[in-house]
Amino acid sequence: MNTYTDIPFAKGHGTGNDFLILDDPHGRLRLNTADVTRLCSRREGLGADGLLRLVRTTAHPDASTMSRQAEWFMDYRNADGSEGSMCGNGARLVGRYLVVAGHYRPGRLALATRAGVRDVHVPADPDADVSVAMGRPTLPGPADITVTAGEGCWPALHVDVGNPHAVVVVDDLAHPGTLGDAPAVAPASAYPHGTTVEFVHDLGSGHLVVRVHERGVGETPSCGTGACAAVAAVRHHGPQSAGPSCYAVDFPGGRLRVDVDAHGSMTLSGPAHLTALGTLVPRDVRGSGIARTAAAHA
Amino acid sequence: MNTYTDIPFAKGHGTGNDFLILDDPHGRLRLNTADVTRLCSRREGLGADGLLRLVRTTAHPDASTMSRQAEWFMDYRNADGSEGSMCGNGARLVGRYLVVAGHYRPGRLALATRAGVRDVHVPADPDADVSVAMGRPTLPGPADITVTAGEGCWPALHVDVGNPHAVVVVDDLAHPGTLGDAPAVAPASAYPHGTTVEFVHDLGSGHLVVRVHERGVGETPSCGTGACAAVAAVRHHGPQSAGPSCYAVDFPGGRLRVDVDAHGSMTLSGPAHLTALGTLVPRDVRGSGIARTAAAHA
Repeated sequence: MNTYTDIPFAKGHGTGNDFLILDDPHGRLRLNTADVTRLCSRREGLGADGLLRLVRTTAHPDASTMSRQAEWFMDYRNADGSEGSMCGNGARLVGRYLVVAGHYRPGRLALATRAGVRDVHVPADPDADVSVAMGRPTLPGPADITVTAGEGCWPALHVDVGNPHAVVVVDDLAHPGTLGDAPAVAPASAYPHGTTVEFVHDLGSGHLVVRVHERGVGETPSCGTGACAAVAAVRHHGPQSAGPSCYAVDFPGGRLRVDVDAHGSMTLSGPAHLTALGTLVPRDVRGSGIARTAAAHA
Repeated sequence: MNTYTDIPFAKGHGTGNDFLILDDPHGRLRLNTADVTRLCSRREGLGADGLLRLVRTTAHPDASTMSRQAEWFMDYRNADGSEGSMCGNGARLVGRYLVVAGHYRPGRLALATRAGVRDVHVPADPDADVSVAMGRPTLPGPADITVTAGEGCWPALHVDVGNPHAVVVVDDLAHPGTLGDAPAVAPASAYPHGTTVEFVHDLGSGHLVVRVHERGVGETPSCGTGACAAVAAVRHHGPQSAGPSCYAVDFPGGRLRVDVDAHGSMTLSGPAHLTALGTLVPRDVRGSGIARTAAAHA
């Protein structure tokens, strides 16, 4: 990264899945892998599951084709620095931030992501749930995917929600063990860029309990695209036409809600809380720049 | 806590031991245990090993007797909300913050703590080490303390550096195991308020390697008072008069330096880096207050 001087940031979370937002309207920041891992480091940085850089669509080459539909592009990076295409909880938190920062009024806004433009709905009440339209998940196959974790090995369904998932339905969420290491997914060719893995316990009547191991992060308290992938897998395995249209998906970090319309398109809803706003401290500044920033709050 | 509105904070670390600093000159914040644990939570807060609230000595009842010697009081809280008396890495980071925020010029400043007034030296170069005078550790006894961790049980020395330590000298730092749980210290009466535990491997010639389990936190990458306690224990066990006067103390998070004068008083030195400055987002605000803060950085 060229410099940290006067880079506004926000830190926040949705059901314990936490993010660092960098407000970079003109796309001036060059974030290499080391920059992202340091910023996401829990002790030496601000700490987060992922980094969401906000750039105007007109200022980012990956987003210029979406500039007529959306004003802002969410450049999503996993904590290990790898590029992500879509992040449900992240998109919801970005929606909250854009309203809190005064870029939008409460209501519906369009957000560009690498998975396409997504509508986000941000109520005026900061404690009310934020929703994002996630589109219709696809099932790319193949049919013979397996996931091994702890002492168990299960068949898995490949679900794509703008990013890849391997979804396993289990009877007991303790069976995959501690998830200290990433579950082994085979065949590797099904996921050339790796995958997030969900373990889903279906309680019936549209109530799922899920643990998730996120690609590039580890086990996290919650995952927005993972909630949609879990619902898609449960609907695929069950009688879809008779299935519920609204699902409560419980993660260790809290509850997300997934609504499914008649065409299979999903809307993800849940809490989105900002914790702090500020500016990053430049690595190379010699006092005056930081002092001015701090004094503005004194 | 009454409200978060416009509370300036800084986040930073010394050798991976990280802190949240709250700038509260008039002592208006009432931080209960839940407030501290939420702020120090890695995902739902900003995340830190401890919280350092800075209050003017004239505005805090615990510090009023020190107001002629020091302008600022460091109200130190462990991540679990419990009150701490002294924190070496925290005092060094506070020194850096007071200079960066423009409260002091680089050089020597006096900081009030619950363990008394401590001199902190902050060089003008933000990459140069910050030092704090830690005073002379005492050895309160008793002589028969033991520490049990992993598969091992060792005799330990009680060292007080403004806060309590049980120091164990080991041949191999792997022997205490993962330190996922707090080591068992006996007799419990030696530490009525609990203790931090150090495992020290003495490489000779003033070079120590240390792991630490901090009271109220868990295993941390580094501990400033622990570095001094480790040096005090090694000097107690060895030929003090012939011992070195300067120690390099390596923690998993990096190296601290401890200088010992002819009277046994110690000075702790090491890196102290600020990561970010900002304001906490109030839990109960309805937009305008936060929006103003964010706009100031836009």
